[in-house]
Amino acid sequence: MAIKSVNIIGSGNVAHYLIHALSQHVRIQTIYSKDFNRAKTLAEIAKSIPVNDLGLLNSGSDLNIVCVKDDSIENTLKQLSKLSSVVLTSGAIEMDVMSEFKTHGILYPLQSISKDRIAKLKDVPFLIEANSSEFESELLQFSNYFSVKSIVVNSSIRKRIHLSAVFANNFSNFFLTEAKRILDDAGVDFKILQPLMIETIAKAFELGPEKSQTGPAKRGDQKTITLHERLLMNEKLKDLYLLITELIQEQSNEAK
Amino acid sequence: MAIKSVNIIGSGNVAHYLIHALSQHVRIQTIYSKDFNRAKTLAEIAKSIPVNDLGLLNSGSDLNIVCVKDDSIENTLKQLSKLSSVVLTSGAIEMDVMSEFKTHGILYPLQSISKDRIAKLKDVPFLIEANSSEFESELLQFSNYFSVKSIVVNSSIRKRIHLSAVFANNFSNFFLTEAKRILDDAGVDFKILQPLMIETIAKAFELGPEKSQTGPAKRGDQKTITLHERLLMNEKLKDLYLLITELIQEQSNEAK
Repeated sequence: MAIKSVNIIGSGNVAHYLIHALSQHVRIQTIYSKDFNRAKTLAEIAKSIPVNDLGLLNSGSDLNIVCVKDDSIENTLKQLSKLSSVVLTSGAIEMDVMSEFKTHGILYPLQSISKDRIAKLKDVPFLIEANSSEFESELLQFSNYFSVKSIVVNSSIRKRIHLSAVFANNFSNFFLTEAKRILDDAGVDFKILQPLMIETIAKAFELGPEKSQTGPAKRGDQKTITLHERLLMNEKLKDLYLLITELIQEQSNEAK
Repeated sequence: MAIKSVNIIGSGNVAHYLIHALSQHVRIQTIYSKDFNRAKTLAEIAKSIPVNDLGLLNSGSDLNIVCVKDDSIENTLKQLSKLSSVVLTSGAIEMDVMSEFKTHGILYPLQSISKDRIAKLKDVPFLIEANSSEFESELLQFSNYFSVKSIVVNSSIRKRIHLSAVFANNFSNFFLTEAKRILDDAGVDFKILQPLMIETIAKAFELGPEKSQTGPAKRGDQKTITLHERLLMNEKLKDLYLLITELIQEQSNEAK
């Protein structure tokens, strides 16, 4: 049976994203946030009913999409009708937290989503998992509304993809933030790094990142490494610099 | 006086890049590599004379461009005529290593250059420094042959830009390499991360990386952090994961 109506539970980045992506295609009946005003703002986009009480969710909806933060999932699930179909949008969660629900699954967008910037939806891979092959098919079909790149994976693979995404996105972004601080202190516009970063990503996916590495760690330029150590005032950051330098050298030796 | 002829000293990634960029615009008289065959291959591109002895460089060239690795710079400079003009292409080097040369400077491309992939040249910012305002003007004019984004900076600023580039490029690429390993082990194509990474970079330069952070560290999802710790078998990588998680949380608290 095709999924034609949903409730959205949560009002964070993923909720924003799904509401924008889905409102043209399915009926979004109710939108829940513990903060009623946030629910209301989102409900206006999708002509839905805002609620701040999980007991008021429309019980006739085909699917409850739970996109609250991981630490709130358990408490949220406790308050949902066990007769409803439910999916979580988390990359790291265990399927069995939903075991009391007859129909349950995962719909995990492999993207860094900020509400200030709705990414091009169709390019985002969605990782799908379900507790039955029937529900799996329904979710795959449903995901066509917002992605051309959905794939079915099991929990073990999904968690490892999620970890790889943390490395790739969160950790790169951490270093971009530190790079911006260094440039801010030097009075240089962060945008000077944009051509370098566009090339970094293009190259990593064309040649493979293991073949793309350059820089003082890779070349073993000890003088430059010592200079950088001197420039870094924050002790933790200095430790981090040296640890990654060591690991880049190990990566590079293993690749030989 | 405009720079119309050069010697290229070195046969690595930057030498490749400059030979491709310059061969249409100036006369590349001699190309030096300690490995004669490498010099010969490059010389064919630019119709130059290959040499493997620094004493055989054309002494009539307007500029010697030294693009050997940082640890070889000192020894290379010793063997060059002190009457020639010389520039280094390094981001981290001190100008005073060239103090015996009457005319000297820096021409540092802010790009990760691999010979297998010549980046779009015109977009690459070149950082320029010179020991006289006259030579500075000549280098700026010369750099128009291969870049529309050259800027003049002093040594202190240049070194800090270089450090920011190591953070942004080398360290991001390190994590992409680790991400690829995790995906390889899980039998998943690394390309699944491409939309995420394109968005990561676009978002960092549009919103600012400090406003773009997402993920378990930023959200404080302790369950996910513990799961990731379990998934990481390499002890150093586990330490690194926890250190960066802690630093992302500090960044995020400071941004509040």
